[in-house]
Amino acid sequence: MKTSASAELHRLMTNALFAVYFFPPFMCWYVQASSEYRIEADTFGELKVPVDKYYGAQTVRSTMNFKIGGPSERMPIQVIQAFGVLKRAAAEVNKDYGLDPKIADAIILAADEVASGKLDEHFPLVVWQTGSGTQSNMNVNEVISNRAIEILGGKLGSKDPVHPNDHVNKSQSSNDTFPTAMHIAAATEVHTVLLPGLQALHDALAAKADEFKDIIKIGRTHTQDAVPLSLGQEFSGYVQQVKYSMARIRAAMPRVYELAAGGTAVGTGLNTRIGFAEKVADTVASLTGLPFITAPNKFEALAAHDALVELSGALNTVAVSMMKIANDVRFLGSGPRSGLGELILPENEPGSSIMPGKVNPTQCEAMTMVAAQVMGNHVAVTIGGSNGHFELNVFKPMMIKNVLNSAQLLGHASVSFTTNCVVGIQANTARINQLMNDSLMLVTALNPHIGYDKAAQIAKTAHKKGTTLKAMAVELGYVTEDQFDQWVRPSDMLGPK
Amino acid sequence: MKTSASAELHRLMTNALFAVYFFPPFMCWYVQASSEYRIEADTFGELKVPVDKYYGAQTVRSTMNFKIGGPSERMPIQVIQAFGVLKRAAAEVNKDYGLDPKIADAIILAADEVASGKLDEHFPLVVWQTGSGTQSNMNVNEVISNRAIEILGGKLGSKDPVHPNDHVNKSQSSNDTFPTAMHIAAATEVHTVLLPGLQALHDALAAKADEFKDIIKIGRTHTQDAVPLSLGQEFSGYVQQVKYSMARIRAAMPRVYELAAGGTAVGTGLNTRIGFAEKVADTVASLTGLPFITAPNKFEALAAHDALVELSGALNTVAVSMMKIANDVRFLGSGPRSGLGELILPENEPGSSIMPGKVNPTQCEAMTMVAAQVMGNHVAVTIGGSNGHFELNVFKPMMIKNVLNSAQLLGHASVSFTTNCVVGIQANTARINQLMNDSLMLVTALNPHIGYDKAAQIAKTAHKKGTTLKAMAVELGYVTEDQFDQWVRPSDMLGPK
Amino acid sequence: MKTSASAELHRLMTNALFAVYFFPPFMCWYVQASSEYRIEADTFGELKVPVDKYYGAQTVRSTMNFKIGGPSERMPIQVIQAFGVLKRAAAEVNKDYGLDPKIADAIILAADEVASGKLDEHFPLVVWQTGSGTQSNMNVNEVISNRAIEILGGKLGSKDPVHPNDHVNKSQSSNDTFPTAMHIAAATEVHTVLLPGLQALHDALAAKADEFKDIIKIGRTHTQDAVPLSLGQEFSGYVQQVKYSMARIRAAMPRVYELAAGGTAVGTGLNTRIGFAEKVADTVASLTGLPFITAPNKFEALAAHDALVELSGALNTVAVSMMKIANDVRFLGSGPRSGLGELILPENEPGSSIMPGKVNPTQCEAMTMVAAQVMGNHVAVTIGGSNGHFELNVFKPMMIKNVLNSAQLLGHASVSFTTNCVVGIQANTARINQLMNDSLMLVTALNPHIGYDKAAQIAKTAHKKGTTLKAMAVELGYVTEDQFDQWVRPSDMLGPK
Amino acid sequence: MKTSASAELHRLMTNALFAVYFFPPFMCWYVQASSEYRIEADTFGELKVPVDKYYGAQTVRSTMNFKIGGPSERMPIQVIQAFGVLKRAAAEVNKDYGLDPKIADAIILAADEVASGKLDEHFPLVVWQTGSGTQSNMNVNEVISNRAIEILGGKLGSKDPVHPNDHVNKSQSSNDTFPTAMHIAAATEVHTVLLPGLQALHDALAAKADEFKDIIKIGRTHTQDAVPLSLGQEFSGYVQQVKYSMARIRAAMPRVYELAAGGTAVGTGLNTRIGFAEKVADTVASLTGLPFITAPNKFEALAAHDALVELSGALNTVAVSMMKIANDVRFLGSGPRSGLGELILPENEPGSSIMPGKVNPTQCEAMTMVAAQVMGNHVAVTIGGSNGHFELNVFKPMMIKNVLNSAQLLGHASVSFTTNCVVGIQANTARINQLMNDSLMLVTALNPHIGYDKAAQIAKTAHKKGTTLKAMAVELGYVTEDQFDQWVRPSDMLGPK
Repeated sequence: MKTSASAELHRLMTNALFAVYFFPPFMCWYVQASSEYRIEADTFGELKVPVDKYYGAQTVRSTMNFKIGGPSERMPIQVIQAFGVLKRAAAEVNKDYGLDPKIADAIILAADEVASGKLDEHFPLVVWQTGSGTQSNMNVNEVISNRAIEILGGKLGSKDPVHPNDHVNKSQSSNDTFPTAMHIAAATEVHTVLLPGLQALHDALAAKADEFKDIIKIGRTHTQDAVPLSLGQEFSGYVQQVKYSMARIRAAMPRVYELAAGGTAVGTGLNTRIGFAEKVADTVASLTGLPFITAPNKFEALAAHDALVELSGALNTVAVSMMKIANDVRFLGSGPRSGLGELILPENEPGSSIMPGKVNPTQCEAMTMVAAQVMGNHVAVTIGGSNGHFELNVFKPMMIKNVLNSAQLLGHASVSFTTNCVVGIQANTARINQLMNDSLMLVTALNPHIGYDKAAQIAKTAHKKGTTLKAMAVELGYVTEDQFDQWVRPSDMLGPK
Repeated sequence: MKTSASAELHRLMTNALFAVYFFPPFMCWYVQASSEYRIEADTFGELKVPVDKYYGAQTVRSTMNFKIGGPSERMPIQVIQAFGVLKRAAAEVNKDYGLDPKIADAIILAADEVASGKLDEHFPLVVWQTGSGTQSNMNVNEVISNRAIEILGGKLGSKDPVHPNDHVNKSQSSNDTFPTAMHIAAATEVHTVLLPGLQALHDALAAKADEFKDIIKIGRTHTQDAVPLSLGQEFSGYVQQVKYSMARIRAAMPRVYELAAGGTAVGTGLNTRIGFAEKVADTVASLTGLPFITAPNKFEALAAHDALVELSGALNTVAVSMMKIANDVRFLGSGPRSGLGELILPENEPGSSIMPGKVNPTQCEAMTMVAAQVMGNHVAVTIGGSNGHFELNVFKPMMIKNVLNSAQLLGHASVSFTTNCVVGIQANTARINQLMNDSLMLVTALNPHIGYDKAAQIAKTAHKKGTTLKAMAVELGYVTEDQFDQWVRPSDMLGPK
Repeated sequence: MKTSASAELHRLMTNALFAVYFFPPFMCWYVQASSEYRIEADTFGELKVPVDKYYGAQTVRSTMNFKIGGPSERMPIQVIQAFGVLKRAAAEVNKDYGLDPKIADAIILAADEVASGKLDEHFPLVVWQTGSGTQSNMNVNEVISNRAIEILGGKLGSKDPVHPNDHVNKSQSSNDTFPTAMHIAAATEVHTVLLPGLQALHDALAAKADEFKDIIKIGRTHTQDAVPLSLGQEFSGYVQQVKYSMARIRAAMPRVYELAAGGTAVGTGLNTRIGFAEKVADTVASLTGLPFITAPNKFEALAAHDALVELSGALNTVAVSMMKIANDVRFLGSGPRSGLGELILPENEPGSSIMPGKVNPTQCEAMTMVAAQVMGNHVAVTIGGSNGHFELNVFKPMMIKNVLNSAQLLGHASVSFTTNCVVGIQANTARINQLMNDSLMLVTALNPHIGYDKAAQIAKTAHKKGTTLKAMAVELGYVTEDQFDQWVRPSDMLGPK
Repeated sequence: MKTSASAELHRLMTNALFAVYFFPPFMCWYVQASSEYRIEADTFGELKVPVDKYYGAQTVRSTMNFKIGGPSERMPIQVIQAFGVLKRAAAEVNKDYGLDPKIADAIILAADEVASGKLDEHFPLVVWQTGSGTQSNMNVNEVISNRAIEILGGKLGSKDPVHPNDHVNKSQSSNDTFPTAMHIAAATEVHTVLLPGLQALHDALAAKADEFKDIIKIGRTHTQDAVPLSLGQEFSGYVQQVKYSMARIRAAMPRVYELAAGGTAVGTGLNTRIGFAEKVADTVASLTGLPFITAPNKFEALAAHDALVELSGALNTVAVSMMKIANDVRFLGSGPRSGLGELILPENEPGSSIMPGKVNPTQCEAMTMVAAQVMGNHVAVTIGGSNGHFELNVFKPMMIKNVLNSAQLLGHASVSFTTNCVVGIQANTARINQLMNDSLMLVTALNPHIGYDKAAQIAKTAHKKGTTLKAMAVELGYVTEDQFDQWVRPSDMLGPK
């Protein structure tokens, strides 16, 4: 049945699939863009380093030993940039303690470029490497060293006059710098992405709560009809959740502000100077505008990352809140005809070309997916945090990857949800009123006037006959229309007396 | 091959297994101990209630509809006792608002008995019931009503003169009382079980950190030999983890102290009086000595249980800390001959009768199992918390079960671990010194005196030949014994200079 | 303001709370019911054993060293009963290998009593003990030994003529017996509780799918109105999920059927006889009717419990299915007036006394709570499973507790959900038809007849004016009523052409 | 104190940080590389599309509405390539059913290019979009349409002669194509990355088990010294775990091979032809060489993704196995002096420049981090899977992202761990023998010869005096050296007798 054309297609296809199967997409990434190399050496021998890259032999060796994941699994760039801040701070303090100012200043300039993101392409390593992040620390040391050498007119890879270990890493160890960069990165992400995102969402929901304060609607418990509340009251619950989301994040920050720098290899601070730890923390605080301090116990700061587990726990709670809010919005906005239909959600993309009014609650869907991801990330962080041994936890890169991912996704999704959904939500007052008026449970308001038994009879008969309470109450002769309107007022049911 | 004896055995066995398979053990639990009943009715009809029980028809009906789990799945008794506190507080406030003092006082007495645990056997319901906990609220209402009736000389089941709904549940709804009891129970468990347990562990570890402060040992990073620290420093990291564990729990409490009482069915407070919510919270605070307040937003307090997710997140972080500490203790205490052997753990049970010194680190094992359980509980709480809809979260019983379980297990395990392990830990100084002296990495101390290259040569040759640094350094002629002893001092490597 | 009466109440209350705080409820459990003791000794010294209990010194010592949790944290009774099966099988095989038949037969009788549940009260130990379950193995050995001694007319605690270690534990170690009991218990729970429960649910859903096969309703995607399907088709998806739930559980069983017995302390089978492992597995298979075999690699069987992690993963997937089904049922059954209202759920408990038709979907709530719990349990099992070291995993009791809990809860909840909900579900055909007829998306059926543009105009205008498609189509003059009825047939939209 | 130089630095730094804070790195990604655009329109209006991209307006609109995450959050390229396979298959089948062969063939060619990865850069969308993956389906439709138009000499964006909806998406809906692509991608990743990786690891471990089969070593239970086994036996446990890992993955595949294609919008197959579903599945099977079939129930296939939860559960179990193995390897390889030191791990990177023999077990660390990530991913998948509603699960992109990530990471890490660690593991036989000989528990072998009491005395005294069993046995005069050597043979303790 196959024509020669389809045979040719099949051949092409087979080749295509061969490529898919045997050259996983990320592989291209390991093949360096440049075809020109310089030779650098570490204690294991010589390696080719692309001429247009600042990194050195240890970075290249890591790419050879850890072919795990691909570009999407690279060390989060926020960690790299936080390293830039830290390396600059360390250079400043080392200068105070006697490091050659020429070298120190060159390091500072190069570190700034790392911090600012200018050198992002020089950090190819993946998360799945040494669990202490040593190789990323060395990647940073190599890049800053070579860039500083370049600034000072030296030769890349010469380690002269700026040595990656002796100068850039001076008074430091991977074991204290990596957790320091973790905390700087996490705190920065929280302050620049997460909290602004939550604040925006809070404000938008609060505006809606105010806008909707006089719209009375049926309440739902167990997903079933219940007594009324105002739509503004309903939204005020969401506002409270987001307000507390921010409070929870903030409550976790004091321990994130503690920096391990100064603990070096095992927490004792061997090879540092008295005061180094405090000065580095001060400098980082000054550079970032965040209240970092030196960790009071460096042993804990290297061997455990409870502070990140705690922060992840707060992120997890935020995710729980987001799931609730986004779920409510999509169910209250369901329809247009066969759902609850109390909210009208903004339409952001072409819905069905033929079916007007079908608005897929896509922003809710993105938000709830983010929430699920954050909950999963939290478990990964928890497991990593629990598995440290002795003087070092070696799940560091995995832990910070997940914490940053959670903070970023929640922050971005909050902005997206706010901008593309919340601010445009409208109340479908006609529908809300109709459901309110059809409701059977308003009958409770008649109890004081005609007694429980007659009230129950009205409700039960109305339910059976599919009519309204009012119609039935009047038909049964227990109240007049005027009495009903006077006695059955949802607006009197919105608070304590 | 089977003799008639074994045939008989097989018959017995088959019967035994039949019983195992077809009468799951918990079933006996649903068969009430008493064989005498009174008849009570709810709107669905008449039901038999054991004469020796205070509960009524709705409780019995729940046992019929929810045969899920068994006795070990009963609603945590702490929730029931917390309900006792709440019902008493509500009765006091209702008395202020006009409830017949005779009825109120009887309710107060009966509620006290619930709170004190005297009536525990009257609460047979399982966690796996209505997700609002309605049936447990009714169980409490029925028990208090009948007990109050009894106090006042009435007839059980008559609902006269103390009605379970009209009087015991006055101004309340399951939807606000159950979350209130959740918060009271959680806060109480935290304060009476968890925090004292953690404090005891903290103090014992701190005493050990002090006791061990002059014992210098080899550090381990990546589980591999590293530079030295003192055993006291190592323990100080654990102390810090436990100190922060308590801080984390406390940081989560402000939102747990908020009570939903006064929100009634959907958060509006319908059918309560202005001031009721505040007075109830004040009374609960006064009865428990804990700083409960009324929740500022009752809609959030009914529809979301983020506060418990947050607390569970703190418990999860505590579990992470415990896992690290207990793991370190068992590895450092491994041996007696083929492990690390730096710690001698107390022997609490018969080890091998033939092999002296084999101490199974059973307390560490109990603690790490507890930690794993708490991490799992946390996921259950997270999922439950994320799935509330509209005005009510209906995962309440499951959530509080897990939070209480986590708090209790961590508290108990902390005490057990402290008492049966930590306080009895001894340093195996001979072993610690031997490992310290055998260590190759002390060679770093020779760098300033003989230069990096000779130092490295010493270390490498010592490793190759399996001898000590000192022996090799002297053999190679680079230092004298005296010089070695003077220059290579681990005690100089414990801090910054 | 306080009267002397309230002062008295306050005093009582204070005492009550004191009791709550300082005598946690489970404590009573550790205080043995009996006040009479016999003295038994282990190598640590003498201990008091209640005269009415068969257990011995090692059991008592465990209760002293592990005061963690309370009665609800006891070793699952299914594990104990599985131990009964195993101990009987071991005794039979040991008899074959030369164990004194009198002793063997007494052990067999006593073990049968353990297996049948007759001796449940003699197993007081909690899950939170040695991670190998050694103490529960010894508890079983002590109980069987003493009961066998009693059968043979000996003196309790004398270890004569039936010794707990030498005879009951012959050719065994805790390290292989406990995992064997884990697998027996898990497989038994799966076959006697879980699979029958799922089968019942499957059958009930399948009956409903058939009953509802001709009821055409609106579909919902993204929670929004979509093209139609039959209610039977919708239920057929649930049927498929439950069918696959059973398939998933069965797919995990082959590795659960593998028994560790015969591996003894480290997997080598030291102190057993060649063939012992195989014969024990055969005997257990014969006693239980389940296809148990001896594990092909005992090292894996002691050091890892991947088979239980795998089974827990299957349980987790079942929980995911249950969450979906129960959520759909409660949303489709929401109302009576303001929800989707397509299903009428059976009313099992008094709903609101005044509001007819309010049916809280309590069975759905129990089921979804169970699902969340199972997901949490799964994480605990995963963490425990991942933390074995060398020749032994020491998270055994925690792991089996969670696996059994998940299997039991899912099994029981399936039966409860089936019996109390699914079989009584009715279709609200009036509502279903109304939503179907009001739907705007049926307009697609007009495209072939009047063209896309006119069809879209009909739908958009109908949405805007809040009227039906049919009314609008006729009003706009594009079709006659008859044409509409002929062309717009949901029943033609239920499958491919 | 600041010099003007440092002031300048501060200014630079501040700017740098400003950039970091206010232009998150990923933002650059949304700014299209090209500065030239063509105008395309969807029903919402006109949009600028980069001239060098094949995608169209709906793709651009999605990038505007979902600024969540960044490049690392893009839809996994495996899903896009799987879509290529599906779209080709659909085009082939549509051709059979009458689609213009010219159009069909162009689609087939373009789809092949998508499948082969040639067009990867044309798929910019992130995971965090519509939960049905609609926008990625449209991205694929747009790219294939435009590329096919180009092949046929038409104008990009004209939708003529190949329309993205009418032709490329013919007989399809996002709701059935996205889950189909999910299954194709997952199965392909399993077969091309995961299983080969596990097989490589299995084979390498099996080779080691064989190589080490005669090396007898001390066993460890509870991390404590126990009776001996061979190193080969120990490794055989790992081999079994990996063997079962593959079995577990395979056991989950039957349900992954089921394809949703043909279900269209809600599972009914509306707008498809009878036989379309089966033919598409056959074609996909033929193109991929994997045994795909059409899902027997399309309602389940759209509304639930239990098959992926199940597969994720299998991946989770694999992760558990990997954690155990990697943990054992690093602990057994710990040292060089102060650890267990039984294994010598290959050194892959420069260790400490001064401390020879320090080999950080970096491959173990990467593997255990991967394991933790997979466990976290699994929870995200579980939560997403449990939250489907009615006819559609809308957590699709998140679910497949996590499943693919887990499969890829485990596959890659297995290869890396195998290549860079396992194959190079050497037994440190000197150390193993020393620990073996020093062991006290071999004394059990003397029991039959000198009796339990004397044996115990030997062991206890040896432990107290810190000497060997043999020395003490001879010193106490109970055995001769020859007798000891003859009777105490670890090689006799490796199996049943």
